[in-house]
Amino acid sequence: MARKNAFYAQSGGVTAVINASAAGVIEAARDSKVIGKVYAGRNGIIGALTEDLIDTSKESKAAIAALRHTPGGAFGSCRYKLKNLETNRREYERLIEVFRAHDIGYFFYNGGGDSADTCLKVSQLAETMGYPIQAIHVPKTVDNDLPITDCSPGFGSVAKYTAVSIREAALDVMSMCATSTKVFVMEVMGRHAGWIAAAAGLAQEQEGDAPHIIVFPEIAFDQAKFLKKVQQAVKKYGYCVIAVSEGARYKDGTFLADAGSTDAFGHKQLGGVAPVLAQLVKNELGHKYHWAVPDYLQRSGRHLASATDLEQAYAVGRAAVTFAEQGKNAVMPAIVRGKGKKYAWSIGEAPLADVANVEKKMPRNFISKDGFGITDEARAYLLPLIQGEAEMPFKNGMPVHARLKLAPVTKKLKGKFSI
Amino acid sequence: MARKNAFYAQSGGVTAVINASAAGVIEAARDSKVIGKVYAGRNGIIGALTEDLIDTSKESKAAIAALRHTPGGAFGSCRYKLKNLETNRREYERLIEVFRAHDIGYFFYNGGGDSADTCLKVSQLAETMGYPIQAIHVPKTVDNDLPITDCSPGFGSVAKYTAVSIREAALDVMSMCATSTKVFVMEVMGRHAGWIAAAAGLAQEQEGDAPHIIVFPEIAFDQAKFLKKVQQAVKKYGYCVIAVSEGARYKDGTFLADAGSTDAFGHKQLGGVAPVLAQLVKNELGHKYHWAVPDYLQRSGRHLASATDLEQAYAVGRAAVTFAEQGKNAVMPAIVRGKGKKYAWSIGEAPLADVANVEKKMPRNFISKDGFGITDEARAYLLPLIQGEAEMPFKNGMPVHARLKLAPVTKKLKGKFSI
Repeated sequence: MARKNAFYAQSGGVTAVINASAAGVIEAARDSKVIGKVYAGRNGIIGALTEDLIDTSKESKAAIAALRHTPGGAFGSCRYKLKNLETNRREYERLIEVFRAHDIGYFFYNGGGDSADTCLKVSQLAETMGYPIQAIHVPKTVDNDLPITDCSPGFGSVAKYTAVSIREAALDVMSMCATSTKVFVMEVMGRHAGWIAAAAGLAQEQEGDAPHIIVFPEIAFDQAKFLKKVQQAVKKYGYCVIAVSEGARYKDGTFLADAGSTDAFGHKQLGGVAPVLAQLVKNELGHKYHWAVPDYLQRSGRHLASATDLEQAYAVGRAAVTFAEQGKNAVMPAIVRGKGKKYAWSIGEAPLADVANVEKKMPRNFISKDGFGITDEARAYLLPLIQGEAEMPFKNGMPVHARLKLAPVTKKLKGKFSI
Repeated sequence: MARKNAFYAQSGGVTAVINASAAGVIEAARDSKVIGKVYAGRNGIIGALTEDLIDTSKESKAAIAALRHTPGGAFGSCRYKLKNLETNRREYERLIEVFRAHDIGYFFYNGGGDSADTCLKVSQLAETMGYPIQAIHVPKTVDNDLPITDCSPGFGSVAKYTAVSIREAALDVMSMCATSTKVFVMEVMGRHAGWIAAAAGLAQEQEGDAPHIIVFPEIAFDQAKFLKKVQQAVKKYGYCVIAVSEGARYKDGTFLADAGSTDAFGHKQLGGVAPVLAQLVKNELGHKYHWAVPDYLQRSGRHLASATDLEQAYAVGRAAVTFAEQGKNAVMPAIVRGKGKKYAWSIGEAPLADVANVEKKMPRNFISKDGFGITDEARAYLLPLIQGEAEMPFKNGMPVHARLKLAPVTKKLKGKFSI
């Protein structure tokens, strides 16, 4: 039987370890007896639609291995969601045209919840349009909001970045608070789920440690309660360190900071809740403040990645190929947490239909009663995910990152496809 | 001869490695045959004025060693500048009262340019007020603006943090730019001197690498030229990454982002130039943007400290004690760069009178002709300072930081001193 080629694409916001998943897919496919070449979509699914494919077989073994320590999306990612077959049949026909031209029988899609939906639609192309293809979703999202999987690859690293960074900054604030900054606000990502905000809580090891307040998107912001807690911390410890989720919102659902613009998925583009909270503290309590918005630094901070997260990201990439070899379709490798006291994980299988468009929120029992901190349950869940410092080679003082050739696959189709 | 005790204090904004200098002072003093105990000022010089001293002899050897990997100011720092003797004789009399009560004959002051001025005033107490004391300044500032010394301990680490962070974030932006963020702005510290902004330039290794634009405080901001360059980068590379100094200003001297409030030294408190620039790009060119303000994260990022910087910070601490043992006064250990091709450094001696209140700006030949980048001269100066990854112990996924006892020295004076 002739080998079919595979298509691999990165989708949505990238992470510090999404390229480790790419390495997992490509290395496993190179070892595979059923998969031919792996063609990566340049800029994600757009590369498939525009027949802009990258021939990963042209990359050296060392270059693919270097993906394990390269943040960002090495082949380009995109925010582009396929519409329903009914609404946009043209796009699906084009996908099949490109897949057929390049003999693609496997579709590996590396993304979050929205991407799982796209992957599910592709997995149904045999039924809906008669093109035989196996579609496997490779989980990834810093937001940790994918269902079924115990955690989402990419999250452990941003969690570690966040916990370490707020701890370090808090030591800075603590040392200066007698005469300078008393309130420090750090904004973290997480539109609808407060997983990253919760991870900031790992910085706290003893009573009095920062962060003193976490503002979750899950808990309606109560200004009076918040200000009271700030004042209490300043009085008791001399300073107050706050982690706030970009998705923090009032009771009526409006975001504390709403930039107004929206992305391709219709999500509101947020940013800047930290200065809003800091200004509130200044206006109401008069304390000197500083604020930080690490933004992309947090999700691309490969230099501070979790070794556990890195291994999981790599493992789901390899597992996707194994699933394909086993003839599976419309599934996603999921991280399964062991039942024992000591943290252990293995790879399970999740049906895509149960993953697509489902958002996993933080359980309420992960958030402390007053709504401003994490519980022991949250700590027990989160702490294993930041274990280990992922190896990171440096040269001449700077990290070594993969520099790929990104050689294009010769186009076989005539005419252009505009997206 | 009876041993005199030493007073050590941290002053001004802290760094990722200022505690390494503290470890250097304390460890060298413990080895010394002329210095008794080291009393640290709680919250800097304020601790001396209020007789709030910390007995460092109560800290274990391991705790002092752990200062080498603990960011922030372990004994507390402050922004408090002693006025002239003529203006505020009361403060100097109080200092002498406290020093005499605790038999202090050595004054180690760990700070930047403003602090050097305070240290100089203390060094003159023998002449001006008849109290014999040797005052040695221990250099520290992320701003790298101290004169005479080749670099300021603290700077190499923030430089490394900045170069690595903007490189990582740029990989993120690059991978998404086809359909998402095209312009990314990262704000860095540096009120009057663009040293940290320049360090961002180290992320660039090849033509086309980020950052594509650096906005220095030394170069008056030219909006038209800036926007043109943004547009060129977006056109050529698909995206544009910008490093901007918090001190970026217009031709007339006004800051691009001016928060309006001032600190104890009369400096304007800045912050938020990144969103201002990002909004400008959006308004004028329409590109989707993201911005980051790492703020304290950059100067407390001990997990990403430069090994070279750490060793220099420790060395100036030890050298200060050696100077004291040699009977010196009103001096500062300075980093001296070797003349050879290969980077080497040693400790020299700088007279405090030449250090106090002098700000070292970037030489114009460190900034590219168009004002938006760094030159080979800048690279040759900066690159050695970020060499080596400073060892950082982790436990249970988090960094291990010193937890000091901070045991107070029993007060000997009656009455309170209000500052």
